[in-house]
Amino acid sequence: MKPLVSIIMGSVSDFPIMEDAVKFLEEMDVPCEYNALSAHRTPELVADFATKAKERGIKVIIAGAGGAAHLPGVIAAFTSIPVVGVPIKSSNSIDGWDSVLSILQMPAGIPVATVALNGARNAGILAVQIIASGDENLYAKLSAFKETMKKKVMEANQKLSAKNN
Amino acid sequence: MKPLVSIIMGSVSDFPIMEDAVKFLEEMDVPCEYNALSAHRTPELVADFATKAKERGIKVIIAGAGGAAHLPGVIAAFTSIPVVGVPIKSSNSIDGWDSVLSILQMPAGIPVATVALNGARNAGILAVQIIASGDENLYAKLSAFKETMKKKVMEANQKLSAKNN
Amino acid sequence: MKPLVSIIMGSVSDFPIMEDAVKFLEEMDVPCEYNALSAHRTPELVADFATKAKERGIKVIIAGAGGAAHLPGVIAAFTSIPVVGVPIKSSNSIDGWDSVLSILQMPAGIPVATVALNGARNAGILAVQIIASGDENLYAKLSAFKETMKKKVMEANQKLSAKNN
Amino acid sequence: MKPLVSIIMGSVSDFPIMEDAVKFLEEMDVPCEYNALSAHRTPELVADFATKAKERGIKVIIAGAGGAAHLPGVIAAFTSIPVVGVPIKSSNSIDGWDSVLSILQMPAGIPVATVALNGARNAGILAVQIIASGDENLYAKLSAFKETMKKKVMEANQKLSAKNN
Amino acid sequence: MKPLVSIIMGSVSDFPIMEDAVKFLEEMDVPCEYNALSAHRTPELVADFATKAKERGIKVIIAGAGGAAHLPGVIAAFTSIPVVGVPIKSSNSIDGWDSVLSILQMPAGIPVATVALNGARNAGILAVQIIASGDENLYAKLSAFKETMKKKVMEANQKLSAKNN
Amino acid sequence: MKPLVSIIMGSVSDFPIMEDAVKFLEEMDVPCEYNALSAHRTPELVADFATKAKERGIKVIIAGAGGAAHLPGVIAAFTSIPVVGVPIKSSNSIDGWDSVLSILQMPAGIPVATVALNGARNAGILAVQIIASGDENLYAKLSAFKETMKKKVMEANQKLSAKNN
Amino acid sequence: MKPLVSIIMGSVSDFPIMEDAVKFLEEMDVPCEYNALSAHRTPELVADFATKAKERGIKVIIAGAGGAAHLPGVIAAFTSIPVVGVPIKSSNSIDGWDSVLSILQMPAGIPVATVALNGARNAGILAVQIIASGDENLYAKLSAFKETMKKKVMEANQKLSAKNN
Amino acid sequence: MKPLVSIIMGSVSDFPIMEDAVKFLEEMDVPCEYNALSAHRTPELVADFATKAKERGIKVIIAGAGGAAHLPGVIAAFTSIPVVGVPIKSSNSIDGWDSVLSILQMPAGIPVATVALNGARNAGILAVQIIASGDENLYAKLSAFKETMKKKVMEANQKLSAKNN
Repeated sequence: MKPLVSIIMGSVSDFPIMEDAVKFLEEMDVPCEYNALSAHRTPELVADFATKAKERGIKVIIAGAGGAAHLPGVIAAFTSIPVVGVPIKSSNSIDGWDSVLSILQMPAGIPVATVALNGARNAGILAVQIIASGDENLYAKLSAFKETMKKKVMEANQKLSAKNN
Repeated sequence: MKPLVSIIMGSVSDFPIMEDAVKFLEEMDVPCEYNALSAHRTPELVADFATKAKERGIKVIIAGAGGAAHLPGVIAAFTSIPVVGVPIKSSNSIDGWDSVLSILQMPAGIPVATVALNGARNAGILAVQIIASGDENLYAKLSAFKETMKKKVMEANQKLSAKNN
Repeated sequence: MKPLVSIIMGSVSDFPIMEDAVKFLEEMDVPCEYNALSAHRTPELVADFATKAKERGIKVIIAGAGGAAHLPGVIAAFTSIPVVGVPIKSSNSIDGWDSVLSILQMPAGIPVATVALNGARNAGILAVQIIASGDENLYAKLSAFKETMKKKVMEANQKLSAKNN
Repeated sequence: MKPLVSIIMGSVSDFPIMEDAVKFLEEMDVPCEYNALSAHRTPELVADFATKAKERGIKVIIAGAGGAAHLPGVIAAFTSIPVVGVPIKSSNSIDGWDSVLSILQMPAGIPVATVALNGARNAGILAVQIIASGDENLYAKLSAFKETMKKKVMEANQKLSAKNN
Repeated sequence: MKPLVSIIMGSVSDFPIMEDAVKFLEEMDVPCEYNALSAHRTPELVADFATKAKERGIKVIIAGAGGAAHLPGVIAAFTSIPVVGVPIKSSNSIDGWDSVLSILQMPAGIPVATVALNGARNAGILAVQIIASGDENLYAKLSAFKETMKKKVMEANQKLSAKNN
Repeated sequence: MKPLVSIIMGSVSDFPIMEDAVKFLEEMDVPCEYNALSAHRTPELVADFATKAKERGIKVIIAGAGGAAHLPGVIAAFTSIPVVGVPIKSSNSIDGWDSVLSILQMPAGIPVATVALNGARNAGILAVQIIASGDENLYAKLSAFKETMKKKVMEANQKLSAKNN
Repeated sequence: MKPLVSIIMGSVSDFPIMEDAVKFLEEMDVPCEYNALSAHRTPELVADFATKAKERGIKVIIAGAGGAAHLPGVIAAFTSIPVVGVPIKSSNSIDGWDSVLSILQMPAGIPVATVALNGARNAGILAVQIIASGDENLYAKLSAFKETMKKKVMEANQKLSAKNN
Repeated sequence: MKPLVSIIMGSVSDFPIMEDAVKFLEEMDVPCEYNALSAHRTPELVADFATKAKERGIKVIIAGAGGAAHLPGVIAAFTSIPVVGVPIKSSNSIDGWDSVLSILQMPAGIPVATVALNGARNAGILAVQIIASGDENLYAKLSAFKETMKKKVMEANQKLSAKNN
């Protein structure tokens, strides 16, 4: 099936974090692809990827990177598809602050939809929410997922509060 | 025309910032509405608003707030529509850090698509990008807008570099 | 016995931190209850809990959460009972700064009495101080507890300064 | 009338901030007193004040200070009355971070109920909430105050959203 | 004369800061050019510029930007010429931290020689130092400039210390 | 021998850090004493200690504490003896920032001579420097210590640079 | 009269801040001198100054600087006289953090007694405290100064609390 | 062969980080030397080293240090050779912020080309880029190195995306 979401990460070492996005998309049966391309080491590939994403049928791009994390912003420069940015607390990061600010503080004109540090699962959810804005079935799936979360919280609480007395 | 984007701000005093989102949506002819509701002072109204947004035809919610900015996250708790969060550097904020972190660092399960501090214009653009994912005409408008930005940069540079020699 | 203090945490994984509050309340024989409810995953339950706390006889609510920690503020929005907030340095937190600022920087009108990062024991003490403002016996217990702390410091110092010469 | 709340500030220059607490207490008809005493310049007076507050009938102490803001913690060391701390962004402060951390990060055993930077109004509200935990009439006043806030937000929003179309 | 140093800034509004680099290069008679190109609004122009800089005889590139300042890093991705980065505290910046971290924290493989926030003059000096590494006359000029600075400090001090007694 | 330097720490658990000061004073044969007293748990003892230090012949007080580290400032409030403050990165600290700012940012009138985070050895050196300002023999010892440090650096470098080739 | 305290600042533009130290020393009749020397622009002069300070009878050096504030540390490298460091929030500083950390975080072996940001008055007081450790008359003066401060606080409070009722 | 690049580190314990620079210079066959000298413990040696570097044929100096990292700036004060600074997250550092700011925020007149925290490899690359600005063969080697990096990214991505399906 043709991917609707394309996940890009700055390095293969980011995969253990970014995999959370892949998993959520699979849970929701939204086809996706993933690649590790570097804004700094393979800039032409990134530009090429971003430019052609729309015509390949991609609806949302999720881009994760650490340190001076330019990847999401660089991709957003070349397309009008929504780009979701995932700041990663990689080994070369100052406690994650560099990744967060490099992705979040984009100039007016070129937004990146930033999620929490290492928040790849939320990036996946956001991508599904975006696609679901034109797909009622998918929206229903998201609502069901939300109900499941709620139940899990309630069940966990029941076990916890059983200790209460 | 029925609004597709609903803009919520934590206080009427946030309007001068949030107006940038309104303006961009108007430039793109995307109908929107805006309201000032407080997650802390009017929690029931916020819950009610968020719960009913989907059935009212809202496709994207933009929520801006300052300080301990809970509004975007609280709205996201009640709906599966994409919520775009705008951290605002209000007078009661510690240089904006509180707003940024309160909006960005949402737990797994409930994403908020965060933009830059005071970045309401980018919130507007992101909202249009989301709607355009199912509307080719709107996507074309966005691409044209991007070309216009490019031209403006080039024209401004021509004036600047004319001083070069 | 009917609980006077209700402890809420954003996730069952916060219990090892929040347990310090439970323990202090038990030391002081102040009846308490505890639950794990999420401001984002179970917003209706949180609203319901906060709205009814007063009529159930709760005198103080202690709420602990990590990351974009909205739980204490959301609870405070629905009640006029004092809410004590405990910022938690959870795994999804940026060194605790997000939790601290999300809880501390509440807007005018809706206070949260914030204690130190992971400071659940102090939250328990504060809750007892609040209840003791109308209960002289409890105040006396608190004073005795303070004397005990003082003695422990002095005894520990005696052992340490014995090394002095 | 005998004061129930005592407001202490580190310097008379903090009064324009701390006055917000005074005003709220006056709105709620809760008698209060205020003084400017320095933990560093008049340590004996502070110790004396804190030690005797309980027997003078004080129910809550509000203490505000800037920079290395030791005043709330020093007072809390001498009493078991709840101490509400107000970090102040004074001229000698590093953007308020020093005041916030000096007040918030109290060691286990001696809590200070910290409110937002310059959040003296919330300190006043918290003090009233504490006293109201043993006074149903005052609790009712607080609930009414909360309703008034809600109405103000709704009226302000009506004016704002009137521009909508 | 053909420029040896090329100064790029993210926006024409950065010129008042970046002009300090231009001025120093003029003082040292090192020919330079300057342009305002945006990594996000005109990514193809930036890529094109960086790719061709070497063959046009450029020896050093100075790139200044604010906010999520990707410009220096993006340029460095396309060339092996030394790139000097100037973080700018622009209006859309969080006190300059975003610009500093976005420029400084480049991943291994693609360095940017970062100078102080708004430190465009030092960027100019660094560029001259780099060119002077192969030009003894220019090195002599730099040494003379350093002597002049020293004299200015000593003269200013003489005036100051004249007040001493 | 009567102690000239008195070392106070907020908790016995700070001893492994503060021991570095003890050791340096012993190396220099400057008699010292050490105690663990808490500004918050034993405020009267701290006040008493500080008030009497001068008459007991103490020349310098070294005070170390973590978190909301009030101990050095509280001591300084009660004496005109120089107080050297050591911020400690204790388990209840936010990466040490709270300790640093609580000790460093003292208001005008009551200085604390602050050293680096966990910098107890430098506190010891500073104490000796202060005493040496009236004791030429001790000054000579300090100079010799400095020469020894220099030699150690040079010897370590010789081993390192031996690898050079 | 021969100066006992030597005040060095990194630039003449730091004088309005550093003047507070001068004034306090004059109040206490402690002779001082002041100069503006740069660790970076006049390194030989700084080295020369620091090396000879002891033999010139200087008892304490106060050094103030902004940005990457190396001056206090560089001076401390060349002498065993106590060096008091004053971080200055100069125009080229990132909110003062760079100055604070560059002065405070000295490595083991070479302490700098750091005071608050812009805390030159406290640097002056600390210098006097150091000299007073061998001069009982001066110690008495300091104690008197402390009493005066106390009285001023009490008088200011009397005016303030006169409004109380 | 005579070294073209001289690497200085503040302590032998910094070698495991700084070795990355040595390795890159060796890969590029650029002769280098390395030494551990302390700006604070051996200031005369550092001054002597920096003053004579030029006449010894050194083209670039790389200086790495942690904490209050004055070494790069102090070296830059004594020479007009480009100085590349490497902030090191040493054990005595506050999460690296002190090292970063002490190196980056140099005053106008004396630049240090700062690279990322622990970014010694990038310091090596920058040094080679600087030397290559007058050596076409070396520039070609750098370009080849860049191509190799690109290939590695692409090969790693092929393995990763093979999992795609």
